[in-house]
Amino acid sequence: MNSETLFENIKKKKSFLCIGLDTDINKIPQSLLANQDPIFEFNKQIIDATHDLCVAYKPNTAFYEQLGAKGWLSLEKTVDYIKTKHPDIFLIADAKRGDIGNTCNMYAKAFFENMKFDAITVAPYMGEDSVKPFLTYKDKWVILLALTSNNSAKDFQFDNTETNLYEKVISKSKSWGTKDNLMYVVGATKAEMLEYIRKIIPDNFLLVPGIGAQGGSLSDVAKYGMNNKCGLLVNSSRSIIYADNTSDFATHSRKKVAELKTEMEKLLAEHIK
Amino acid sequence: MNSETLFENIKKKKSFLCIGLDTDINKIPQSLLANQDPIFEFNKQIIDATHDLCVAYKPNTAFYEQLGAKGWLSLEKTVDYIKTKHPDIFLIADAKRGDIGNTCNMYAKAFFENMKFDAITVAPYMGEDSVKPFLTYKDKWVILLALTSNNSAKDFQFDNTETNLYEKVISKSKSWGTKDNLMYVVGATKAEMLEYIRKIIPDNFLLVPGIGAQGGSLSDVAKYGMNNKCGLLVNSSRSIIYADNTSDFATHSRKKVAELKTEMEKLLAEHIK
Repeated sequence: MNSETLFENIKKKKSFLCIGLDTDINKIPQSLLANQDPIFEFNKQIIDATHDLCVAYKPNTAFYEQLGAKGWLSLEKTVDYIKTKHPDIFLIADAKRGDIGNTCNMYAKAFFENMKFDAITVAPYMGEDSVKPFLTYKDKWVILLALTSNNSAKDFQFDNTETNLYEKVISKSKSWGTKDNLMYVVGATKAEMLEYIRKIIPDNFLLVPGIGAQGGSLSDVAKYGMNNKCGLLVNSSRSIIYADNTSDFATHSRKKVAELKTEMEKLLAEHIK
Repeated sequence: MNSETLFENIKKKKSFLCIGLDTDINKIPQSLLANQDPIFEFNKQIIDATHDLCVAYKPNTAFYEQLGAKGWLSLEKTVDYIKTKHPDIFLIADAKRGDIGNTCNMYAKAFFENMKFDAITVAPYMGEDSVKPFLTYKDKWVILLALTSNNSAKDFQFDNTETNLYEKVISKSKSWGTKDNLMYVVGATKAEMLEYIRKIIPDNFLLVPGIGAQGGSLSDVAKYGMNNKCGLLVNSSRSIIYADNTSDFATHSRKKVAELKTEMEKLLAEHIK
């Protein structure tokens, strides 16, 4: 998928929402535990209830890995389900990988070939040769960590030195890919920094986590970060998928998603003429 | 395992070698492919042939993930095999994970509870709260990326600004753990920088990749990086495990390991009085 198709989907659905499938076996409704694969069953019901109101899903690999090979199987089934039923969905592996080139070739194979993800989140610490292997795949994306939503982002990413690390990361890496295969993670909890980031990368899409459970503001994100082709995927995970804990959880998730979608529709109308 | 036990093992075996189990289905001897689990069979034979000459093994997760759930199962079996047969081996998950705290709890569960790894490599980009969850486990270790062995380490880790990022990472993070649960990755390809790093962290163990296929020198690593309790785990992967491609591969791997062990024995005698 290229950036134009992604923007078309956003306009069609009037939503730039990404739903984080951070599915924790200890948090899903008890009623699902009798299923052979409770994690997949949970995801399936969330996907069935929300796919028309969002443009992307983002499973975080940690939640699947905590269950070992079995969890990995639930992830593979989830990816297959989304790509078969809803091929227009932009599917992100929130894996935050990053290793030497030889090793990143293996990660690329894992997420882009064996599983049909459209994108993977990558940590920039090891530099260009740790990122490039992912960019050799046509229509596949790297989403590079720039400014993350957690408190400790201040430890290294912006420490008020002359040039903050996150700025260096964005400035240096922007030529490694294009607006059609390189996106950046910028936390909603740092919305005011989006204005400055947009000066460095006016055209790249940004993946914005941190609204909902982490407290970021959606209208601030749109105000400072939206460009004339939207340029934003805003993610919410816990506040959507754990909106309710009964067997009727998916209906409650849809309600939560519909609220966000309504807000996003307004923001799109307001900012994109 | 604490640092004292690790040093005892090093003295006993006269080796500070870590063997990287970067087992690639496309590189192992053809003769193994008839096995039900060729990856595990390969690892088993390497382990049987080398365990008395090394103190640590380090599977890199990418090589297992490229095979999906099946690969994850091979990894689980490898971990079980090592921990059952050779409990004195220090077992490292080369996973280079790093995420918000809530998510890192899941990774810690995956690698320290479900699988019995002693240590995990972690990327520092997201800061303290992305590292701390791993440090809450007794006798388990974080091995934090500091100065990696790849060429692009220069992009962000040392870019000749006033304070290089790798120095900031080490200086800031050294108080997050102790010499008994916090180790650093420093590439052998940057051996001359070890002298300076030892001034910041005289006592922490260092995991040193990059000898062998990547070209780093073992004697330089010992010269600049060894402390009076060794303080080094030197890793080699490809040059050991792919020393030969016939059904007799394990014998050739042992020969390669024995050469390294002899060199290490000399260096230990030379540097530790």
